[in-house]
Amino acid sequence: MTSPVGLHRVVEPAGVLPQAAWRLDADPRIAPNEVRIRVERLNLDAASFRQLAQKHGGDGEKVRAEVLEIVSTRGKMQNPVTGSGGMLIGTVEEAGRRSPLGLAVGDRVATLVSLTLTPLTILDRLARWDGRSEQVPCDGYAILFARSIAAVLPADLPAELALAVLDVCGAPALTARVVGEQVARRERVGDGSPVTVAVVGGAGKSGSLSLVAARRAGAARTVGVVPVEAERDALAAAGVASVVALADARDPVALSSAVTSALGGPADVTVVCVDVPGCEHGAVLATAEGGTVIFFSMATSFAAAALGAEGLAADVTMLVGNGFVPGHAELALGLVRSEPGVRALFESRLAAD
Amino acid sequence: MTSPVGLHRVVEPAGVLPQAAWRLDADPRIAPNEVRIRVERLNLDAASFRQLAQKHGGDGEKVRAEVLEIVSTRGKMQNPVTGSGGMLIGTVEEAGRRSPLGLAVGDRVATLVSLTLTPLTILDRLARWDGRSEQVPCDGYAILFARSIAAVLPADLPAELALAVLDVCGAPALTARVVGEQVARRERVGDGSPVTVAVVGGAGKSGSLSLVAARRAGAARTVGVVPVEAERDALAAAGVASVVALADARDPVALSSAVTSALGGPADVTVVCVDVPGCEHGAVLATAEGGTVIFFSMATSFAAAALGAEGLAADVTMLVGNGFVPGHAELALGLVRSEPGVRALFESRLAAD
Repeated sequence: MTSPVGLHRVVEPAGVLPQAAWRLDADPRIAPNEVRIRVERLNLDAASFRQLAQKHGGDGEKVRAEVLEIVSTRGKMQNPVTGSGGMLIGTVEEAGRRSPLGLAVGDRVATLVSLTLTPLTILDRLARWDGRSEQVPCDGYAILFARSIAAVLPADLPAELALAVLDVCGAPALTARVVGEQVARRERVGDGSPVTVAVVGGAGKSGSLSLVAARRAGAARTVGVVPVEAERDALAAAGVASVVALADARDPVALSSAVTSALGGPADVTVVCVDVPGCEHGAVLATAEGGTVIFFSMATSFAAAALGAEGLAADVTMLVGNGFVPGHAELALGLVRSEPGVRALFESRLAAD
Repeated sequence: MTSPVGLHRVVEPAGVLPQAAWRLDADPRIAPNEVRIRVERLNLDAASFRQLAQKHGGDGEKVRAEVLEIVSTRGKMQNPVTGSGGMLIGTVEEAGRRSPLGLAVGDRVATLVSLTLTPLTILDRLARWDGRSEQVPCDGYAILFARSIAAVLPADLPAELALAVLDVCGAPALTARVVGEQVARRERVGDGSPVTVAVVGGAGKSGSLSLVAARRAGAARTVGVVPVEAERDALAAAGVASVVALADARDPVALSSAVTSALGGPADVTVVCVDVPGCEHGAVLATAEGGTVIFFSMATSFAAAALGAEGLAADVTMLVGNGFVPGHAELALGLVRSEPGVRALFESRLAAD
């Protein structure tokens, strides 16, 4: 019986999960609970691509050679320096009879689990990629385990847009859950006060989706915090937040003042979506006693969050933003379909890339 | 008006909170909302003391000189390498008329906020300390802000025991809250299934307190996971867990198998109290869908937790263990008073130190 989390594909070191492994077995022959994808494109994680481009001084040939070397050595695309991977799109080539993923041969899918744990073989030496973009045209094979997640690409949205949405779909789903729980709790105890939400980095992909998810989950007032005027204007024009505020999220006093003025008090739920270090203290300070901070930024320091809240004697619940919430892909795609402001923000970002 | 979180004491860099500051103003003259403590002893954080001792090859004189240098340069005891501090005990020397802490002159207290944010001046050049222990006899001044936390040392417990308990009192308090919420939720929806709890590192200080806190909050079955036989025997003898299991927490499969066998299934709440890196995946895998993982270990990697749960498609709530929960000191001291098994574990640890 093959492991639903892919333990049988771990070559070294023994006993760890695929993500923590140095090397995976990317044999294209699948077990009965696996699925093989014919890969069409890799989307490298932004931090990983930036590291590779900087290391090689922007020389695309060298970047391409290193990605090939990583995948052939490790059996997966996991940057050894950043530890990050990315995602891929492709078509289902073979689905094991015991796979629970519900995929059929011919489905065009995006993987929602990281490349860091996905067995991968490249067949075309990435001949169509110039090494200068995170988007990597690629012919090859990838393997999905029983507990991997993949979303069938919707027919009604451009693939680029759908991918950008799926890449961050955990954030609106968890935000909606946390805000919904706060609203339900107040209703249960007869507390009629409105639930307020601050999204730090509100003009970004995960940020704008989280703002509309919060509103739909019952938040009475939301603020999107952004660092520069261009983002302030774009977010205001999109109309997805009750208020837009300008502040440097690394400055705890500036951030908490901006949130407090915008909402008339600290936020019941603060969502951190900016990928810069040093936002933990400001997020805690911007949140009401008994409130919740959700950290989606991979730049979050566990120790800074834990010690910061203790040092401020702040009774706040702090969540590690889990990228998986059941139904997250459908929720995020639905928001982009029905919220023209969010879709406009995504499209202008894609056009700028 | 002086800042309740001590911003007026930050010398450099400007605008950060005291914990993130390089240097604090440790002037002994207090503002109306501050309290001055006459220090009697510093308890250096274990990681900080270990780093200093290793750097100086165990030369106590050099360790002492470096601690003096750090405190005179930074105005606080924060190890520049580990970033950590510790706590202190002393006696209230002056309490500002607007201090909300409820402390009176003459109260013997322990600070429950870290030394990393506490303005400190040493007066005796640490003449009574040999530099060979985390316990530092010290004459000096420390300043508490309006939002600092200090606990009056109880008269009925030895000071060493009380300090050891107060040092980890956030863990049982947050565990009790999370378990209590799970129990209440099941009652609300008429779900009669028992709530189960796994504590990884169950024989330690925060672990043993969390085990009894979980039971008192309504957990029907608890397992304490420990890495070695001596701890297994000690925890079993203390009688604070329903079951004791032996497993290496860094081995995800071993940890989840141990928890699952002990509880008859994955845990509803998993509490991580072991200070070793690499326990994130095992903790996620040991937790039931819809369950909660609380990370108290400062060795926790934010990215490993976030990406690990996503990679496992695990719908678990992951909490950053906030060391502050209202009433945490009283709760933990009460558990040690009323649970002889926990008290015995603490006393044998103190005797071994």
